[in-house]
Amino acid sequence: MTEPAGSRGDTVDTRAVVDLLGVLAYAELTAFDRLAEDARLAPTLAGRAALARMAAAEIDHHTRLTARLVELGADPTTAMTPFVAALDAFHGSTRPRTWLEGLVKAYVGDGLAADFYREIAGFLPDPDRALILDVLADTGHADFAVREVRAAIAAHRTVAGRLALWGRRLVGEAITQSQAVIAERDELAQLIMEGTGDLAGIGRLIDRITDAHTERMRALGLNP
Amino acid sequence: MTEPAGSRGDTVDTRAVVDLLGVLAYAELTAFDRLAEDARLAPTLAGRAALARMAAAEIDHHTRLTARLVELGADPTTAMTPFVAALDAFHGSTRPRTWLEGLVKAYVGDGLAADFYREIAGFLPDPDRALILDVLADTGHADFAVREVRAAIAAHRTVAGRLALWGRRLVGEAITQSQAVIAERDELAQLIMEGTGDLAGIGRLIDRITDAHTERMRALGLNP
Repeated sequence: MTEPAGSRGDTVDTRAVVDLLGVLAYAELTAFDRLAEDARLAPTLAGRAALARMAAAEIDHHTRLTARLVELGADPTTAMTPFVAALDAFHGSTRPRTWLEGLVKAYVGDGLAADFYREIAGFLPDPDRALILDVLADTGHADFAVREVRAAIAAHRTVAGRLALWGRRLVGEAITQSQAVIAERDELAQLIMEGTGDLAGIGRLIDRITDAHTERMRALGLNP
Repeated sequence: MTEPAGSRGDTVDTRAVVDLLGVLAYAELTAFDRLAEDARLAPTLAGRAALARMAAAEIDHHTRLTARLVELGADPTTAMTPFVAALDAFHGSTRPRTWLEGLVKAYVGDGLAADFYREIAGFLPDPDRALILDVLADTGHADFAVREVRAAIAAHRTVAGRLALWGRRLVGEAITQSQAVIAERDELAQLIMEGTGDLAGIGRLIDRITDAHTERMRALGLNP
């Protein structure tokens, strides 16, 4: 924790940092899993390899996050365990049935999650803030997904309606599961409360996340 | 294998090189797939992450092999396609049902395949020989598999018999599929014939591969 004295970073509870690193480490492990699974739905060998490469980038992020947990004296498995049920429930209830659903989930779902984690990371001191922002940086997935989904919509206009519904379902499930996680992790909830300042601050945070989501749906050519 | 200039390496048919790079590139893509799938069978989050990291190493190899194919003026998809059916058939008929079967397959099956590809690579000139030997180098998988399987056998003696049978089945299926591949790829078959020199040479190649296989089964604590 090398933040200058006096900033709010100094007062962050290490348990909240461990929680955030833990949920992210498990999120990256499931992201690997899911991208690897979706790779099998790819219509071409090149698409399959592209998704496999993105999966590989996620596991590299996972490794960096667990290394930081160890540095903080936390056991990675213990740090990840509280979040396994909620993240597995999210992925279990939003299993893509097609290549395009997988791409929309990767772009829209991961985008939403990344925005949320980035907001929380903003309340942390470095090096944790920098590490989290770095592992959340896009790994080329966004451009790839946008290109493929737009091309599919251009070829078959009807897929747009179905994919838009799918995008809305992803958001609903993501909100349900994040609320479940925050309700169970006091330190994390407190970090968000203190970081945003008050209810109006939380409202603005949700507005920013919602706007970015709308933007991503539009980029795919889908009604938000 | 540091063959001097003027060796038979110089006269190798580029189509055979493209074949070998193509089959390996697809093999690495399926290895990624399979390791990612097996990761889900892991009994611990740490084991799951370890397998995911190995999967990531395979896709990196795949990327290097396809880059070399492009350099040789070959289209990676075209180069891989002739081998898709045989490799998919091998994996389809040897799908691990347990975490331990997955580890034995990764160690024994991949070890056997790597030995075979290494023998063929020995007939090629550089840089292809060096590239192939490099991507076939172990990515930490071997130690990990040996440790886990030996520990499981120590805990439950009865698993050894079942896993030994599984190891033998893997060899049988691998031989069936390699014969199918070689029978269909004239340039590859010719490369092996010319490289080994004669039938006695092929016999010695098979002996070396068999010996290394026996060695690996013993390292796992299994009867070959």
